[in-house]
Amino acid sequence: MIRVGINGYGTIGKRVADAIREQPDMEVHGVGKRSPDYVAVGADEEGYPVYAVDEDRADGFREIGIDLAGSVDDLVAESDIIVDATPSGIGAENRPLYERHGTPALFQGGEDATVAEVSFNARANYDEAEDAEYARVVSCNTTGLSRFLAPLHENYGVEKARVTLVRRGGDPDQTGRGPINDTVPDPVSIPSHHGPDVQTVFPELDIDTIGLKVPTTMMHVHSVNVTLEERPDDVGEVTDLYRAEDRILTIPDYAGIDGAGTLKDLAQDAGRPRGDIWENCLWEESLTLQGKDLYCMQAIHQEADVVPENVDAIRALEGELSGPESRALTNETLGIDLGYLHDRTDLTAVRRTPDESPADD
Amino acid sequence: MIRVGINGYGTIGKRVADAIREQPDMEVHGVGKRSPDYVAVGADEEGYPVYAVDEDRADGFREIGIDLAGSVDDLVAESDIIVDATPSGIGAENRPLYERHGTPALFQGGEDATVAEVSFNARANYDEAEDAEYARVVSCNTTGLSRFLAPLHENYGVEKARVTLVRRGGDPDQTGRGPINDTVPDPVSIPSHHGPDVQTVFPELDIDTIGLKVPTTMMHVHSVNVTLEERPDDVGEVTDLYRAEDRILTIPDYAGIDGAGTLKDLAQDAGRPRGDIWENCLWEESLTLQGKDLYCMQAIHQEADVVPENVDAIRALEGELSGPESRALTNETLGIDLGYLHDRTDLTAVRRTPDESPADD
Repeated sequence: MIRVGINGYGTIGKRVADAIREQPDMEVHGVGKRSPDYVAVGADEEGYPVYAVDEDRADGFREIGIDLAGSVDDLVAESDIIVDATPSGIGAENRPLYERHGTPALFQGGEDATVAEVSFNARANYDEAEDAEYARVVSCNTTGLSRFLAPLHENYGVEKARVTLVRRGGDPDQTGRGPINDTVPDPVSIPSHHGPDVQTVFPELDIDTIGLKVPTTMMHVHSVNVTLEERPDDVGEVTDLYRAEDRILTIPDYAGIDGAGTLKDLAQDAGRPRGDIWENCLWEESLTLQGKDLYCMQAIHQEADVVPENVDAIRALEGELSGPESRALTNETLGIDLGYLHDRTDLTAVRRTPDESPADD
Repeated sequence: MIRVGINGYGTIGKRVADAIREQPDMEVHGVGKRSPDYVAVGADEEGYPVYAVDEDRADGFREIGIDLAGSVDDLVAESDIIVDATPSGIGAENRPLYERHGTPALFQGGEDATVAEVSFNARANYDEAEDAEYARVVSCNTTGLSRFLAPLHENYGVEKARVTLVRRGGDPDQTGRGPINDTVPDPVSIPSHHGPDVQTVFPELDIDTIGLKVPTTMMHVHSVNVTLEERPDDVGEVTDLYRAEDRILTIPDYAGIDGAGTLKDLAQDAGRPRGDIWENCLWEESLTLQGKDLYCMQAIHQEADVVPENVDAIRALEGELSGPESRALTNETLGIDLGYLHDRTDLTAVRRTPDESPADD
């Protein structure tokens, strides 16, 4: 049983904790928390031992009935591995603490790639983390792009990828972030950091990215173009490729799912914890082939898609299972399967025949 | 076992269905659904028999693997009671169908009060529905106001209530509704319909309401002023009154819950289905007494607060349990209890002593 310490119990940390609890081969040893607020109360209600990030605030925890299990230093000493889910930049500051205790650690994608020897995505490069002591689970957007690009890279070769990331302004509980009524180039310099970040997973892959922020809180949406080295027979072949991927939810045309709101509604109807969508959400109708140029749109739930990746990364560092074995176990235990949207009907017919695609030479 | 038919399986209908499934004395006989989309697939996955609202679309259901159980006419004939959760105005059109089959029915608050002989709120007037064949469960906002006003009405008397309703523009999946960047008086005429609607529950209560719409999808927020007939000793007395209410979540100051986003985050952390908040959410810190004038702010989850009211209304019409018995059973089966935010700590101290409230009388 791998004892996992979660340092930072916010949007990602609490989801990773709940995901670890579902695994047969690991357990939550405790969580590091800074503020004695409703989220701390939630951790205590879940039965997670709480360790103080800031010992000066110990009284605040006591006042709301939380018996601290110790300090974060204790948490690091007692755990087999740490998932650092602290805010961007704090992870790098924490690395010396993990080194001092000889405790392996995962960092999140908000850190620079230099924080760890491997940048990790379970679909793309699980094996590279097997000998590492530190790994960085790449960000939600880079995770989504890595999952999307892997099958194209393997089957057709990627000559060049160009992606516009229409990013959510903040998470639903981050009411203080903007923009409130604007579409903001962010960063205005091109490429955004996402392209180089994808190259930490696929070093040879040619990709340029552009980022903007909009006043929504639900999901990021990517407008994707990939020029392939080898042309698929038709777009149906590409659709089938993505239908076979375990962490890509291909949205069938009939479903009436027209945006992030309906996607969240679907996830809630399916009983997903916190309405989380762990998969990339790829609109099948948007998949379009123009010569060797593939186009599509996909939505990425920024709070959720890295959660199964963290679980897999723990197994990669501990060297317990192969990548496919770990992914399958994580998928099964979390319930990463909305395949019933497809299974219930015969959707093998290709949406668009070549004849209906006039510019499709 | 009361066989309940749900006519209209949208935002409210699907939540009412799931709530009924948790009850020991009733069962979902089937649901009426118009469109063969992801929501219909969800109903089928849940095991609810699906009845076609529009028989011309039967082929669409068949194509996605849904074996229709019949038409809505069949659903009405086979059920002991119907919960009509169709869009506003359709309920009234449906009443003749229910009458033809002699099937009692509940309507939702989007209908005019004339659709049924009783406008219902479980806290305020459960008993009035006991002999009725038709009842209207009042809207989310009227439900929230009725729950809030009942304890004041009973303990101090309400001389006059004045409420500004800052309403969400649409639900999260209603991407086509506005406003997208405005604060819109809606309606611009005063009072809005909410005041008169509260009077369908409290006929004698003097209340004026003003409504506006803002570009959010999460919750409504009410700015409340009530001039009381009798002055409470201090605001702590009022706080205690609300802490004792079963469907009012009083938000303690320590929790760091600053808006609808954090409220939804709390509900998700607590494992609530769909992140639903069935209670009024009343900020304790906002409760303020100036002479006989009480002020506060409360948030209302428009998708959820009427759900337990529908369950109770079924029992009221069927004459099975008393109001307090039904409410207690509904609360327990659904898990309407976030009391751990308070139980874990000694919060009996009154937030603000009279001395700190200089303008207080």
